[in-house]
Amino acid sequence: MLFLTRWRRVFTPTTSFVLRLYHMSSPMSSVGQSAPKMADKESSVESFPPPQELLTPLRVPQKTLLGPGPSNASPRVLAASALPLLGHLHPEFLQIMDEVKAGIQYAFQTRNELTLAVSGTGHAAMEAAVVNMVEPGDVVLVAVHGLWGERCADMCSRNGAEVRTITKPIGQNFTLEDIQKGIEYHKPCMFFICHGESSAGVLQPLDGIGDICHGNDCLLLVDSVASLGGTPLYMDQQGIDILYSGAQKVLGAPPGASPISFSPRARGKLARRKQKVPSFYFDMNLLSDYWGVGLQKGQPRKYHHTGPISSVYALREGLAKLAEEGLENCISRHQQNALLLHQGLQDMGLELWVKDKSARLPTVTVVRVPEGVNWKDVASYIMNKYSIEISGGLGASAGKAWRIGLMGHNCTRDNVELVLRALKDALQHFGVRVQARL
Amino acid sequence: MLFLTRWRRVFTPTTSFVLRLYHMSSPMSSVGQSAPKMADKESSVESFPPPQELLTPLRVPQKTLLGPGPSNASPRVLAASALPLLGHLHPEFLQIMDEVKAGIQYAFQTRNELTLAVSGTGHAAMEAAVVNMVEPGDVVLVAVHGLWGERCADMCSRNGAEVRTITKPIGQNFTLEDIQKGIEYHKPCMFFICHGESSAGVLQPLDGIGDICHGNDCLLLVDSVASLGGTPLYMDQQGIDILYSGAQKVLGAPPGASPISFSPRARGKLARRKQKVPSFYFDMNLLSDYWGVGLQKGQPRKYHHTGPISSVYALREGLAKLAEEGLENCISRHQQNALLLHQGLQDMGLELWVKDKSARLPTVTVVRVPEGVNWKDVASYIMNKYSIEISGGLGASAGKAWRIGLMGHNCTRDNVELVLRALKDALQHFGVRVQARL
Repeated sequence: MLFLTRWRRVFTPTTSFVLRLYHMSSPMSSVGQSAPKMADKESSVESFPPPQELLTPLRVPQKTLLGPGPSNASPRVLAASALPLLGHLHPEFLQIMDEVKAGIQYAFQTRNELTLAVSGTGHAAMEAAVVNMVEPGDVVLVAVHGLWGERCADMCSRNGAEVRTITKPIGQNFTLEDIQKGIEYHKPCMFFICHGESSAGVLQPLDGIGDICHGNDCLLLVDSVASLGGTPLYMDQQGIDILYSGAQKVLGAPPGASPISFSPRARGKLARRKQKVPSFYFDMNLLSDYWGVGLQKGQPRKYHHTGPISSVYALREGLAKLAEEGLENCISRHQQNALLLHQGLQDMGLELWVKDKSARLPTVTVVRVPEGVNWKDVASYIMNKYSIEISGGLGASAGKAWRIGLMGHNCTRDNVELVLRALKDALQHFGVRVQARL
Repeated sequence: MLFLTRWRRVFTPTTSFVLRLYHMSSPMSSVGQSAPKMADKESSVESFPPPQELLTPLRVPQKTLLGPGPSNASPRVLAASALPLLGHLHPEFLQIMDEVKAGIQYAFQTRNELTLAVSGTGHAAMEAAVVNMVEPGDVVLVAVHGLWGERCADMCSRNGAEVRTITKPIGQNFTLEDIQKGIEYHKPCMFFICHGESSAGVLQPLDGIGDICHGNDCLLLVDSVASLGGTPLYMDQQGIDILYSGAQKVLGAPPGASPISFSPRARGKLARRKQKVPSFYFDMNLLSDYWGVGLQKGQPRKYHHTGPISSVYALREGLAKLAEEGLENCISRHQQNALLLHQGLQDMGLELWVKDKSARLPTVTVVRVPEGVNWKDVASYIMNKYSIEISGGLGASAGKAWRIGLMGHNCTRDNVELVLRALKDALQHFGVRVQARL
């Protein structure tokens, strides 16, 4: 056989090589009889050549990612991504899943049993929250003060919800009165609000919202992708029913496995569903069995899908770093460095997008672009000269602002000074007179 | 502030530290007024301690994964997983996405423009195929001869399809006659079949099915998670309309980004949808804009979600290895090593689950467990003594068979000899008289 292969390889064109392979893998004769056309087709099979761009080395430059995310992962987290694969049901991997679950419970400050990492990026977690909670006809109220509210509204309507919204101009957040009015008027079964609106750099206070929701028989769904670990968040104490986040911000892990948790109240709605969850991949009933929710240590897990092994390793290490530093120290570090950045920007004569100090998101700072300056020229100058990413505005702030992120491994005093120096250099390069104090 | 922090840290309990942080991040006063209960609640916020299991090092043993998947990733692929993160819209990352797209087109042997990697594992790709193609009321015919048909049927029904099935006992595959009858009787708009049924180790011939489908105004959806790169597969020539696969089998990359492609005919159905795709995360209309489908090089991409950067690096390297080896050489390697394994197993007096040689899947071999032998004892012995994974049966073969995978980086003559040696040792250990020829 091996000899034949060689012989054919040498003396016949690709087409018949393909034919030969085909003979090995299925009985040509029967196929030939039942679909004679295929025989001709088979013999005309041609192999597309390998793409040239894949025959060159993979090129990945080192950059300092000080945009709204992803942020750089620490060497420790990157090293974890390169560890050997394990089977998705091997005891050692189940142990790592348990550690990830415990880490998410700590980061979220929750004791919810149904706490796990969805096998996808932050948007996957948002979708997992929506597909499990929403049934056709459900009224969902979405607070829109930037991109993430719009995204959630879209997802809810795709799932047949009757979507109502309350809105605020980008850069502002909602008061408890706004929310109370909205909920009492629309009587939704779920209310969505984004804790850290990274498109505007706005922090939404959460205290009191849970009580309003629960007093009106409504679940509270919160997006903490850009806020988790950078500002206080206490899922249980704040009465949050569904909370999700991403790996690539403060947790400093590559995107690919995303934290999510459901309160007993949320699980009640899941249990009362009239219809199956429309998504198999995100079905929390099935994921619970895979993640061992409610199982004793050692009880057999049920195979659901092959988890993203390496991404789970990395998330585990991101959560371990948070546990080692301590949640409160991590939050404090992000707040302190944000204050230094804000001061430095103002010392340069720049204006912050969010006026209300208490409404500023520590992880992502939005800065107004001075009159007559092109935001992109400045961002490109900084990328080209310093390999630092700062990004432009989004939605209402597009073209009018820069967004500077200080998250996780990147949230250091050195990076604050680095980005201020780079920005000052760039502004001066483009002829802006920067105030002397820096 | 920093001083105050230290002072408070030293002289007050956690609770007031949390309160202090809270004061920094949102105006307590207004919250206090509108929801006095919260004030008390806030002051009673307590921080859960870091979980002890996260304060110990991550432990990942090295194993040889010779089950049905995941298979070991090569050192080159693992190294790529640990490269620095890039922004999901940085030109260097868009370039890598283009290379991944070209690599998938090569692996699938297709020129389909709508070819990309879904941001999830193999099940995510199956779900992406279903949610984009299926609308409520659509009749879908699913060929069930193992677990994957059942999974797809479940996903289709969750999406409101009227699901019909044709079935075969696990271990057998479908003839063109079976399929023609089924399609002419049920008149589906889409037909699903699994090319490599890893639960039974069965290879399903595909030639002729496309013609039958298209002659009956039906789309052909094929699962190639366990077959891609291990046996001939020619998406365009075989008239496959939707094809998907996984990263962790022959491509030898960690699960997390999964290849999928849609033919012009499939895109036609997508364009004719009456309703939006129920999933935002898997919406191929939006993913096309992110992956630059139909865009000229350099035209701006549209942000959809943050892709799993590291998983895309790894998939790129897995595809590059395939391009370097050459698809036909890779297929030939898998076929040759499968034949060696089959011979070796039979020489030991073991019986293969699939009788028809041409119906054997080269990537996953299913072996009957001899009378009086407990499959798990043998698998555990091999894992404990050799750190090699071979797994048990699934569905109808559960408890009655072992499944041995030889995929990608693991598909070597050395591994064939290693697993045969280990299996022989294990069988002898449990008192089975193994024939002498090995």
